[in-house]
Amino acid sequence: MLKRRQSKRVLIGEVPVGGGAPISVQSMTKTRTDDVGATVAQIKRLEEVGCDIIRCAVPDAAAAAALREIKERVRIPVVADVHFRHELALMALESGADALRINPGNIGSRARIEEVAGAALERGVPIRVGVNSGSLEKELREQVEQVSESERSGAVANAMVESARIHISILEELGFNDILVSLKSSDVQTTVEAYRLIAQECEYPLHIGVTEAGSVLAGAVKSAVGLGILLNEGLGDTIRVSLTGPPEDEVRVGYMILRALGLRERGPEVISCPTCGRCQIDLVSLVEEVERGIAGVTDAVKVAVMGCVVNGPGEARDADVGIAGGKGSGVLFKSGSVVRKVQEDKLAETLIAEVRRMTE
Amino acid sequence: MLKRRQSKRVLIGEVPVGGGAPISVQSMTKTRTDDVGATVAQIKRLEEVGCDIIRCAVPDAAAAAALREIKERVRIPVVADVHFRHELALMALESGADALRINPGNIGSRARIEEVAGAALERGVPIRVGVNSGSLEKELREQVEQVSESERSGAVANAMVESARIHISILEELGFNDILVSLKSSDVQTTVEAYRLIAQECEYPLHIGVTEAGSVLAGAVKSAVGLGILLNEGLGDTIRVSLTGPPEDEVRVGYMILRALGLRERGPEVISCPTCGRCQIDLVSLVEEVERGIAGVTDAVKVAVMGCVVNGPGEARDADVGIAGGKGSGVLFKSGSVVRKVQEDKLAETLIAEVRRMTE
Repeated sequence: MLKRRQSKRVLIGEVPVGGGAPISVQSMTKTRTDDVGATVAQIKRLEEVGCDIIRCAVPDAAAAAALREIKERVRIPVVADVHFRHELALMALESGADALRINPGNIGSRARIEEVAGAALERGVPIRVGVNSGSLEKELREQVEQVSESERSGAVANAMVESARIHISILEELGFNDILVSLKSSDVQTTVEAYRLIAQECEYPLHIGVTEAGSVLAGAVKSAVGLGILLNEGLGDTIRVSLTGPPEDEVRVGYMILRALGLRERGPEVISCPTCGRCQIDLVSLVEEVERGIAGVTDAVKVAVMGCVVNGPGEARDADVGIAGGKGSGVLFKSGSVVRKVQEDKLAETLIAEVRRMTE
Repeated sequence: MLKRRQSKRVLIGEVPVGGGAPISVQSMTKTRTDDVGATVAQIKRLEEVGCDIIRCAVPDAAAAAALREIKERVRIPVVADVHFRHELALMALESGADALRINPGNIGSRARIEEVAGAALERGVPIRVGVNSGSLEKELREQVEQVSESERSGAVANAMVESARIHISILEELGFNDILVSLKSSDVQTTVEAYRLIAQECEYPLHIGVTEAGSVLAGAVKSAVGLGILLNEGLGDTIRVSLTGPPEDEVRVGYMILRALGLRERGPEVISCPTCGRCQIDLVSLVEEVERGIAGVTDAVKVAVMGCVVNGPGEARDADVGIAGGKGSGVLFKSGSVVRKVQEDKLAETLIAEVRRMTE
């Protein structure tokens, strides 16, 4: 088991983040927040795939007001994402937001900051300081631009941490400590370096993610590399995988990353051989059919789909259950032992039925 | 720049592996090797996406013989993957295979091993010792099975390294040192641990990969976590991403992983925001269209597809070129500065044309 960084615990609604809590998986709605029907429907789909915390953009008063009805209709806590306008943060709190993502240095006068922090404190609502390398303060950005190309990544990481320090200290001076921190860049190495630095100097829980990661496959890979390295070093209390794609995929990929490191499990893990010149069946279609058939299963179960009857059951002996294909007929196996022969065209349905039975 | 482990250099055909060479990206054909037409066509598609080294299964004499014609018709080096049968290894060498993947401990008598090692040595052909956690020697497997569940992963890693030692020492005793090593498990943590251990005790270049990783998305995520952690620690001289899917995806994902860590670049990197409630255009389709339009570009170029005109160009100022969308019209920008306004329905084609022009 990986050793995790000790962090302070905060509560987002009823979901604990940090202090040894399970690493939570977040996403963000991609609907217009003031379209309550569409937003609630999206959140309900996200709840089904295991999303723990959802964030909604609050670009205007209509969105801030909509949070009230959204909150009433969903189970998971809702984080209001606010930029610049303190009155929207106040409205979101009024609507029952479970957390704010807002950078206090960007909302204007001391009085405004005090008002927001005071209202959050009163309601026990945490604030995430969310630094993004693409929107650093002008002075920090200008410092970074003077650094040579080869040292740019480290300089950006330092500037991101400096930006976080500024926002954090504004809150701390007001006696507000219910803080989470994120430091996201679209560059994986910059992101990793920034989190390593901040982890050394504060105990706030870390919301980790790589930003603007790209489309589903490319974004999943970048996120898996970045979050994988951080989580492997014990850093990260809650994760968001940012993809230009369905938010459900963000959650699925999040769980895949956590599972790869033994940090959290949810749903089946399908292991399958890459197929090779020895394979005599259409393994790709078989895997797709099995994945579709067990998509709704929430229990952690290791399922194997292997290309050859001779090596398959043995090679996949770690799997709880699996099939190995062959020309005409294959086998169903459990923990490495063959249970029975199965006709080739019944392999998928046999495995799906078996997984369902085992996880019911 | 990440510091890499010092390793011995071997040559697979003309591709150097280890000793500071660029990390090469491998794949394996999924056709029947004796179907020369299909195999060559697949390898040519792989060459186009940047595959450096290709491996073909050699399950029988027809496959071993087919390697000769395959070799004549492709540019990249071909590795013969042989299990158990030493005569197939000899035939593959006769056919001009550029490397063998064979475990000498599995091919029988000392005389047979000497014959294979001798033939490989004569031709200057390296051998990869490829240990797979699912096919450990019986004695090693039985040792592992006696270990408690919680310590299983570490025990498997140790057993894999022990297996590699056995195969390596057989070759070394024969004076054969032109060796690569791989230690693959379908479990990410076991894989990572096994490579860490072997790296401490030999200088042979490491072929790294997570085996039976699953379908394209799940397998890409597992591979990215595992290889990302290893590469970040300086381990790995050549990589294979195993996916139950098209081998071209294995190569594409391989490059995505290397690029995320600044280790090697090829082709465009598309950064794009995840879209949110503020986004007023169909960003997912836009990204897909751009990705399709620039798929053939081999130069490394950072391309941004952003959802809002206000923040997009600034947030993506690291990109060489990008578009930011808005209702009705968006902008084309370069290195953070807006170049010109573009009609919404011309955004993708404008960006594609600009990327093509920049990389021609």
